[in-house]
Amino acid sequence: MKPIILVIFDGLGDRPIKALNFQTPLEAAKKPNLDKLAEVGITGLLHTIERGVRPGSDVAHLAILGYNPKFYYAGRGPFEASGYGIQLQEGDVAFRGNLGTVDKNFIVIDRRAGRIESSEVFAELINGLEIDEVKIIARAGLNHRIAIVLRGNNLSEKISDTDPHVVDHPVKKSYPLTEDNNSKSTALVVNKLSDKVYRLFNKHPINKEREKKGLPVANYLLLRGAGKMLKYESFLEKYNLKAACIAGAGLYKGIAKILGMEIIEVEGATGKIDSNIKGKIKKAIDLSPAYDFIFVHIKATDSLSEDGEPIQKKIFIEKTDQFFTPLVSLVKNREIILTVTGDHTTASDLKIHTADEVPIFVAGFGVRTDKVNKFGERSCQNGGLGHIEGANLIDFLINLRGETKLYGN
Amino acid sequence: MKPIILVIFDGLGDRPIKALNFQTPLEAAKKPNLDKLAEVGITGLLHTIERGVRPGSDVAHLAILGYNPKFYYAGRGPFEASGYGIQLQEGDVAFRGNLGTVDKNFIVIDRRAGRIESSEVFAELINGLEIDEVKIIARAGLNHRIAIVLRGNNLSEKISDTDPHVVDHPVKKSYPLTEDNNSKSTALVVNKLSDKVYRLFNKHPINKEREKKGLPVANYLLLRGAGKMLKYESFLEKYNLKAACIAGAGLYKGIAKILGMEIIEVEGATGKIDSNIKGKIKKAIDLSPAYDFIFVHIKATDSLSEDGEPIQKKIFIEKTDQFFTPLVSLVKNREIILTVTGDHTTASDLKIHTADEVPIFVAGFGVRTDKVNKFGERSCQNGGLGHIEGANLIDFLINLRGETKLYGN
Repeated sequence: MKPIILVIFDGLGDRPIKALNFQTPLEAAKKPNLDKLAEVGITGLLHTIERGVRPGSDVAHLAILGYNPKFYYAGRGPFEASGYGIQLQEGDVAFRGNLGTVDKNFIVIDRRAGRIESSEVFAELINGLEIDEVKIIARAGLNHRIAIVLRGNNLSEKISDTDPHVVDHPVKKSYPLTEDNNSKSTALVVNKLSDKVYRLFNKHPINKEREKKGLPVANYLLLRGAGKMLKYESFLEKYNLKAACIAGAGLYKGIAKILGMEIIEVEGATGKIDSNIKGKIKKAIDLSPAYDFIFVHIKATDSLSEDGEPIQKKIFIEKTDQFFTPLVSLVKNREIILTVTGDHTTASDLKIHTADEVPIFVAGFGVRTDKVNKFGERSCQNGGLGHIEGANLIDFLINLRGETKLYGN
Repeated sequence: MKPIILVIFDGLGDRPIKALNFQTPLEAAKKPNLDKLAEVGITGLLHTIERGVRPGSDVAHLAILGYNPKFYYAGRGPFEASGYGIQLQEGDVAFRGNLGTVDKNFIVIDRRAGRIESSEVFAELINGLEIDEVKIIARAGLNHRIAIVLRGNNLSEKISDTDPHVVDHPVKKSYPLTEDNNSKSTALVVNKLSDKVYRLFNKHPINKEREKKGLPVANYLLLRGAGKMLKYESFLEKYNLKAACIAGAGLYKGIAKILGMEIIEVEGATGKIDSNIKGKIKKAIDLSPAYDFIFVHIKATDSLSEDGEPIQKKIFIEKTDQFFTPLVSLVKNREIILTVTGDHTTASDLKIHTADEVPIFVAGFGVRTDKVNKFGERSCQNGGLGHIEGANLIDFLINLRGETKLYGN
């Protein structure tokens, strides 16, 4: 059976931009490979969730992978924590965390503690703590980043962030967001943890050293994005597809890992503008005989839109396009099923995710082509797929392989 | 009111085929009438059930006729048995059956008893038997084919086949597929019936005669496709349309009969490649003043795809096209509403049903045309109907007649 390669450019879709003569970055980009693939494929417009819904990257990916976020999403924390390498258990409550700097009145001076080199030592100080019979698991990420997981009975993710999200404001207490007792007790654990962490961190030798050097100290734990780990059927159980993920950024690895995909590391895959996209695509091709489904995530399109850089986004797409050359011949020989799309639109002029559709093409084995010969937001309006929803994508691809279960007789 | 003629080519849709220069059989076929009808009509792509669902012919037809298989489908058996002429009652459990040949160790030697000339005598031996207060109804079909119905209280269709579906394997016991007592007792009836039939058939004079001639004996009843007869609102009750069906193959007649359509026999309508399509279309036209809705079923497109014969499928479509000539003028004069589609795609390269959309056109009275002027999988991508689901088709057609019930005021 032919392997499926799914490439998601994060935030691929965009809006007509004045500086690009009212083209979108994707429309304006010179991208002969992506255009050729769209030409020999079938195109359309993807609503990740449904028309008019403006998705975060977490729910967008769940939806595209066929996991209805209504049932498979209870906050971002678990996907991040999983991406940091923490093995989550059902019922865990997880957070994204920053090491931050607060003054003696608990006013936030720096939300990233001067992008401190490492949070390793601090994560070790927290990891294994126990508060009110709740075990704390901590894992360091890059720089100031740290994932926190609470493990115990009756935890709730319905609690507020301690991160005020802006400087010059005091840190926040975590509050229960429902009347439920579990929310109240979980918020209490978080607040006790925050106090304890301050006491452990504030006078730590590393911070004394930093103070001497005039660097912001890492004396507070800023938590956000509480989420509960749910039960997930694996991709293999759900679809009978052996799946791998190639991604730079933690969230996407975390989602893939929770769905039981194998996480394949590629050197230089950073999820940033200088990421080793060539290596990622080469790796996907190398994996394709051994795996049925390879999910490749490319992050920089989203980051550039959120930074309001549509021209850089266009240039990034152009640079990336050249690495698609080996995929073109595989598609033309019908040796793979390739689909390229985004998880949502990120409008460069607004610098936010929007609910605008995302162009999509599917090319290779079994595909009925259409007349569209350019990959773009507006060219794909005339595609043979029409408007499709994320929930239908994996089923569509499995059908191309000829492996869909028969309904009826 | 203008009569509706619905022509379903079974398994009409296909995929680009190398031997046809990557056209589908329908695209490659010279079919001036169907193209003209698409041109003067409105076109689109039909998802019989919904995107990504790969339907059997039974559920596909129910869906297209507006009977949601979620509520109107519990196995294929009843539709087959109804096609054999058995009047089913709600709660009956029905099977497709073959007369087969087993050796003394109950290993299947021939699943069709050498395609024995007739199963009449054997059906009569079974018909009217009673086992555990369950009445057995049997009706002979062509050659080795025989329909079996169980009638009694608390029967269940959740039981396994006795047909192993391959030769050189032993016959199977029927097993309950649920923990339910009704499944257990129904499976027991089937197993007792199988034993009894073997005793009745094995030494029957016809079989002694066959043995002498070196022909495979018909000494076992191979059952498959258990299904329960549900309650069906008739087509007339549901839509206020007086309906007729013209079909060769039993399944389609059976479905139509269960939905209360009149079954109109046409000489030479066999459901095979040599079927009298000309006669079927002529009959549909003749019936059209007296009936509001005429369903014409053409089977060979599916059979040819399942046999991996895309070129023969193309030729069959070409041959059939010529018989559509009288429909063209009726459509042009807006005297009828004609729709032509398939119940699913059958991919000739994979030799299976797939979930790929099926092209559809609707032409004649009340239709807004579009720019599509060819009837094909890809040309219809640009049709005015867009992507539509089977569930919406009959309502669309009734609306053309101007007979849709008003919602609101």
